Amino acid sequence: MKLLDLVPVTADVITPEMEAYIGKYLSEETVLESDQITDGPVTIECEYDEAMAQADVIKHCIQAEKGGYAGVFINCFGDPGVRAAREVVDIPVFGGFEPAIHTALGLTDKIAIVTVLKNVLPLIASEIAKAHLTNRVPIVKSVDIPVLDLQNHDKLCRALIEESIKAIEEDGVGGIVLGCTAMIDVAETVRDGLLSSGYDVPVIEAAQTAVMMLEMYAKMNLKQSRVTYMPIPKK
Amino acid sequence: MKLLDLVPVTADVITPEMEAYIGKYLSEETVLESDQITDGPVTIECEYDEAMAQADVIKHCIQAEKGGYAGVFINCFGDPGVRAAREVVDIPVFGGFEPAIHTALGLTDKIAIVTVLKNVLPLIASEIAKAHLTNRVPIVKSVDIPVLDLQNHDKLCRALIEESIKAIEEDGVGGIVLGCTAMIDVAETVRDGLLSSGYDVPVIEAAQTAVMMLEMYAKMNLKQSRVTYMPIPKK
Amino acid sequence: MKLLDLVPVTADVITPEMEAYIGKYLSEETVLESDQITDGPVTIECEYDEAMAQADVIKHCIQAEKGGYAGVFINCFGDPGVRAAREVVDIPVFGGFEPAIHTALGLTDKIAIVTVLKNVLPLIASEIAKAHLTNRVPIVKSVDIPVLDLQNHDKLCRALIEESIKAIEEDGVGGIVLGCTAMIDVAETVRDGLLSSGYDVPVIEAAQTAVMMLEMYAKMNLKQSRVTYMPIPKK
Amino acid sequence: MKLLDLVPVTADVITPEMEAYIGKYLSEETVLESDQITDGPVTIECEYDEAMAQADVIKHCIQAEKGGYAGVFINCFGDPGVRAAREVVDIPVFGGFEPAIHTALGLTDKIAIVTVLKNVLPLIASEIAKAHLTNRVPIVKSVDIPVLDLQNHDKLCRALIEESIKAIEEDGVGGIVLGCTAMIDVAETVRDGLLSSGYDVPVIEAAQTAVMMLEMYAKMNLKQSRVTYMPIPKK
Amino acid sequence: MKLLDLVPVTADVITPEMEAYIGKYLSEETVLESDQITDGPVTIECEYDEAMAQADVIKHCIQAEKGGYAGVFINCFGDPGVRAAREVVDIPVFGGFEPAIHTALGLTDKIAIVTVLKNVLPLIASEIAKAHLTNRVPIVKSVDIPVLDLQNHDKLCRALIEESIKAIEEDGVGGIVLGCTAMIDVAETVRDGLLSSGYDVPVIEAAQTAVMMLEMYAKMNLKQSRVTYMPIPKK
Amino acid sequence: MKLLDLVPVTADVITPEMEAYIGKYLSEETVLESDQITDGPVTIECEYDEAMAQADVIKHCIQAEKGGYAGVFINCFGDPGVRAAREVVDIPVFGGFEPAIHTALGLTDKIAIVTVLKNVLPLIASEIAKAHLTNRVPIVKSVDIPVLDLQNHDKLCRALIEESIKAIEEDGVGGIVLGCTAMIDVAETVRDGLLSSGYDVPVIEAAQTAVMMLEMYAKMNLKQSRVTYMPIPKK
Repeated sequence: MKLLDLVPVTADVITPEMEAYIGKYLSEETVLESDQITDGPVTIECEYDEAMAQADVIKHCIQAEKGGYAGVFINCFGDPGVRAAREVVDIPVFGGFEPAIHTALGLTDKIAIVTVLKNVLPLIASEIAKAHLTNRVPIVKSVDIPVLDLQNHDKLCRALIEESIKAIEEDGVGGIVLGCTAMIDVAETVRDGLLSSGYDVPVIEAAQTAVMMLEMYAKMNLKQSRVTYMPIPKK
Repeated sequence: MKLLDLVPVTADVITPEMEAYIGKYLSEETVLESDQITDGPVTIECEYDEAMAQADVIKHCIQAEKGGYAGVFINCFGDPGVRAAREVVDIPVFGGFEPAIHTALGLTDKIAIVTVLKNVLPLIASEIAKAHLTNRVPIVKSVDIPVLDLQNHDKLCRALIEESIKAIEEDGVGGIVLGCTAMIDVAETVRDGLLSSGYDVPVIEAAQTAVMMLEMYAKMNLKQSRVTYMPIPKK
Repeated sequence: MKLLDLVPVTADVITPEMEAYIGKYLSEETVLESDQITDGPVTIECEYDEAMAQADVIKHCIQAEKGGYAGVFINCFGDPGVRAAREVVDIPVFGGFEPAIHTALGLTDKIAIVTVLKNVLPLIASEIAKAHLTNRVPIVKSVDIPVLDLQNHDKLCRALIEESIKAIEEDGVGGIVLGCTAMIDVAETVRDGLLSSGYDVPVIEAAQTAVMMLEMYAKMNLKQSRVTYMPIPKK
Repeated sequence: MKLLDLVPVTADVITPEMEAYIGKYLSEETVLESDQITDGPVTIECEYDEAMAQADVIKHCIQAEKGGYAGVFINCFGDPGVRAAREVVDIPVFGGFEPAIHTALGLTDKIAIVTVLKNVLPLIASEIAKAHLTNRVPIVKSVDIPVLDLQNHDKLCRALIEESIKAIEEDGVGGIVLGCTAMIDVAETVRDGLLSSGYDVPVIEAAQTAVMMLEMYAKMNLKQSRVTYMPIPKK
Repeated sequence: MKLLDLVPVTADVITPEMEAYIGKYLSEETVLESDQITDGPVTIECEYDEAMAQADVIKHCIQAEKGGYAGVFINCFGDPGVRAAREVVDIPVFGGFEPAIHTALGLTDKIAIVTVLKNVLPLIASEIAKAHLTNRVPIVKSVDIPVLDLQNHDKLCRALIEESIKAIEEDGVGGIVLGCTAMIDVAETVRDGLLSSGYDVPVIEAAQTAVMMLEMYAKMNLKQSRVTYMPIPKK
Repeated sequence: MKLLDLVPVTADVITPEMEAYIGKYLSEETVLESDQITDGPVTIECEYDEAMAQADVIKHCIQAEKGGYAGVFINCFGDPGVRAAREVVDIPVFGGFEPAIHTALGLTDKIAIVTVLKNVLPLIASEIAKAHLTNRVPIVKSVDIPVLDLQNHDKLCRALIEESIKAIEEDGVGGIVLGCTAMIDVAETVRDGLLSSGYDVPVIEAAQTAVMMLEMYAKMNLKQSRVTYMPIPKK
């Protein structure tokens, strides 16, 4: 089985480390290939970027189906183009948000999403509302670290751990979802940090989880409903 | 005051009748001008069309602000590009959904949206969920008339009246919102049809309502919140 | 068009400044006239006061319709008598709560109401619940200033700004609604205070907003639904 | 213990049969006395009637406390004046709605309210919304029988049974609350009718239930919270 | 009338003081007898304990009905076996959760549950969610006192008062429900403590309240719905 | 990896066909072994049966962990003992409900559960409410076929297809979850039946889905949160 990791930004972000990390838990038979859009935002940091990415994301999904991929992961927590792409292809399509949340729902009653940039907080809250999951995902927080400081892996992890602990202690959540799909080797460090503070809770990395769910859907021959995602009308 | 009616499709749909109808209730001092996108779908009939319209819609909103417009109405009930556009301009931006719903909320406890094409039902339901308004807008229905038959004004109105009566009698709604911004002289006929069936209820036409709300926001110097719609990050 | 600003208390509170402030954004053609009840509470500061005001409020609404008014604004954030009055007249009737909230809903995802007296907090929370808007208006706060200190405009504004900042920072709201219709020149000061703290968010003054919405409904020939507000039965 | 059954209408409706029926399950030590307002609507059939009853209802509650009553039942399903009266007296005050619903909640997961007049449907739906109980009380229905036909006990009961069966079969409710406090010997007939149709479900009569709950609260020295129902401010 | 207080643990906890305290407000004619299970957990401190208690709880309920009891109170706030027992007997069965909450709902708009052990917090939150009461009971807190310290009545009460005050001041609740049925003479002390801090709010003791509600249901010949709690199928 | 399929009834229901069917989509490396409880109900057809199964289910989960299983599937849609078992073992534990629902949530906006016996409808509705998923899973239906007729595969499938079509057409759901884990080769027939009626929607078989999700969780080293499922207190 061949799955596509479609990066919806034009910046040069695809690395062997990222590819290995995302595909880490897949079956040996499953091949995960990466591609990215060429017409869209350099990075995704707000609703405007999401909107500007959608057209080319959808085109790549159509090509992916023709190219024999069994499913597409649109590599962004904001799910850009996901609903539209589902209308036009017959293979499962997921962004980062839904698989991470659905996986976390099985492990705990209340989830916090902790992300990096504050500009995407309303967008993520909209995703939660649209999914009628406000009572299960009551908290969305950002560490609000400037992009230039994101390279500083230690600083990022410390900030994520601190916000996660607040969410556990003040809001009673029992699991953390990292609200950005571009963090390598972060979930493990955050999980260890929480554990050493006495909190043995799942920390869900969205990209790894999305490709695992995608593989599962593809193995079970499951794809999006054509009642929810109707075929596009002929014009 | 100058407002922009931005049509987010490329089909040749702007007519003097439409312009007169939409602006019917505006103050004399208010000028409503129409424009449309050039890069996007011919018509909007599904999530795919919405997604393909967004990039050019946003560009036109940026130009509208530069051109001195006091506000932009994105002329589609699916609100394509609305949230993204609000991030990048400092004038109020609305699609057809929000103003129609907020206006109807003041007149009745429960609202039905009745639209034309069934393909947009999930999209409209997502808008309602995103707005946490499921309990106030519990019903979304379509008459499911093929596009070619939409020219038949009588048939369309009869079908809308029939579905509206069902929503009132079976679901207990007290007001109807027409879930498409491209219906001229329809709301009045539907209202009369309901009245002659014994139901004196508001029938909200979304385009007229949107420009009236837009005019009101502009007069009061109100625009979108910069906590919800943050300025886009510099890259 | 002639609109009535009906003050539901017997205290001598109608001043030219108040009248000018409330009607500030209306069209020139629109005339806003003020009147007040004569049988009811001196001021409205709790549910008891609201209840005692209702009978005379309703009588004045009936007279207003006979007197040719195109709509009535019942000048109190607690909406006393609004639902009952809608049953007995055929012109639109609004209190301060609904128009302010519906206007704010178009500008931000989450709203805080900040009011003066703590006694009305449960009443306002009931209004929100009745409207199924708890997820959009999650916070109601008061500055809890004794009535005698309300004359102190600076103190009041400072307290409102402080509570509004807390609502933005701690609860993530993106807009403020002032939960009392008797504040002149306050919204502008609160808005400026928030702006100078870095928060560019709408601050909605309920009385101005209510008459603007009322004018819009009247212009569009829209009134309350007779399915929600049935005609009163003959006895 | 002495409880007051306060009838919030001026029509001559207090009869020995009604008094005996309402007090049927009270302890022998408990005395239930009836009184009624003198300034208000003849009957309560809409929001307008509710509003017009409130002022005199509240006055009677104040007198009842002075007169040594341990609690007041405001004998109407619309709870007129209940929230206001709770602010001004230190004895428990209930209308018909809350005790009936809270009692039914203990017996079944989903409740239908079946009432007589359709004019009160929006009012009852507002009560449910205000109590955040829409998911537990999803259905409110009326038999819509003209007042003159209400004397016809058989016709009323047949209609109530028919609507109750629909609510059970179509909406899955497991219990019925009669949404009007003026029905004598009706609940028992409706219960038997449902049983003979195969549905062994509770049918809650609101007046009997309210006085039983009132007696329980009074015995346990429980009264309304002064955080929810604050003492009225001095003026 | 004879009611059963069924203690769902095997520890030797039934004392005359406890029996007198629980039955304190019952009518003189009502006899409350205590019994306990013999096959199950020593104490109930988590979901595991709840599960291990259920089988023997249900057996005792069946015996209670045969023994002529008019109702059974399963003496635990976690309602172990309540739903299952209701299927197999024709007398009302309640645990501690439902009656306490339904009684509190009549006295205040928002309730906090304050309990002793943190291990039962998710279980109680599940009960609230199952009842669709999250908006009315938004806060569940524990004092997290080790079991050995529970004997220290003063320390327990001080901690409960402290958490209750936080719930009132920070979360705006207007009433407290003690989330454990094994506290004697605690509710009264907590109530007094809150009163002396300026908060005149109800403090509901769950065991006393449950037997009072049970007595009321039994007097009114009300039992669980057979649509919600169907008779068990023959095998 | 070794997973346990734990059947929570004592009837002789484990067959090679069932085992092959449930494990159909698992990786070759994954071994699925079946076991069943010996102390509990013959079959699970109501809340009483669920309760009677729990104690032995939990014991088997503890043994499974000791026996080196990487996860346990408790083979019943009612999730008997799931929450309790999660407290006492450090491997993931799932029943049939959660994995099926979470998987369906990724494919459609609204889900119907269609089950066999009407006695489990309230139990399933409770599961949905407990998970705060009422808006996503608004419909639970049964075909209400007597147990003896369940052998009749054609009749069962026809009835399931009929109810599923009603749920799609009347309630607007876009996916079906089979609400019972004991149906072999049924999902495929139902899916084909819906397809030939024009509805291309996912039909989720709960047992297959549960073991796939379990395998995924185990591969990713994810287990239940210890904040939601705390370790049981020492006594």
